[in-house]
Amino acid sequence: MADETTPIAVEAGAVPPSQRRGGYPEPFATRGTGRVRRQLGDAFGLTNFGVNLTRLPAGGASALRHAHTREGEFIYILEGEPVLVTNAGETLLRPGMCAGFKAGSGNAHHLINRTRHDVVYLEVIYPDDDLGRAIAPDGSRLFVHNDGRPY
Amino acid sequence: MADETTPIAVEAGAVPPSQRRGGYPEPFATRGTGRVRRQLGDAFGLTNFGVNLTRLPAGGASALRHAHTREGEFIYILEGEPVLVTNAGETLLRPGMCAGFKAGSGNAHHLINRTRHDVVYLEVIYPDDDLGRAIAPDGSRLFVHNDGRPY
Repeated sequence: MADETTPIAVEAGAVPPSQRRGGYPEPFATRGTGRVRRQLGDAFGLTNFGVNLTRLPAGGASALRHAHTREGEFIYILEGEPVLVTNAGETLLRPGMCAGFKAGSGNAHHLINRTRHDVVYLEVIYPDDDLGRAIAPDGSRLFVHNDGRPY
Repeated sequence: MADETTPIAVEAGAVPPSQRRGGYPEPFATRGTGRVRRQLGDAFGLTNFGVNLTRLPAGGASALRHAHTREGEFIYILEGEPVLVTNAGETLLRPGMCAGFKAGSGNAHHLINRTRHDVVYLEVIYPDDDLGRAIAPDGSRLFVHNDGRPY
């Protein structure tokens, strides 16, 4: 059964931002500049995949350009016009556009906000292979090997 | 490497609607009324989890009320004001609100559109346990046991 404290629904923008920069262990650490990420799935106990509401301020970037060998990722633009940088070059995105990155595809990517307005997007992250999620004693989310060992 | 035909990004609303009612095998078959679902993840070869852009017309429902024993699900409202029906009763949702349903929680749920305007939402579906995804020879997506046997 669902925990009695699990909400039925929440305002995504009212979920407290994550205090950690993505919670990734090295070598998955991200180094976003000014990025604010709200871990929406956590509010409902969804620990097998991550759903984040992420805001990039003017001049911000989602992370250093990176390729996922162990995660699939999907993004959906809600507000603003970021530039998606991939192996193929730059693509301007608008609200209602989406992009996906299959685990192991080797397609390095990141989002840059070159505008003077915030960019807001949903990102879905699906850990593959030997990357699982666990909840630490302090309630924070961390990545673990599939056998539960921490990175 | 990513298939060369994989797009970098797409307009979510321009992805052709699925011709099948969700692609679920029995007993997972859904019986939505008027629901139009666009399988966004498929455009990028993301077969391990599903991301759908779903439109419910006035008077439509997402499915019969159901609980997932084998899937986690997350929804994010983009347009309109559907009613989320769960074990706890009815909750009115607005754009920017989200809800999540952990696999095995036993919390039966569905969305109903009682308004005169369309409801549009993103849904993320994560198969757990013995429910995997495969691509059929005709290109359609289907659910399989983890060992690849079809349902």
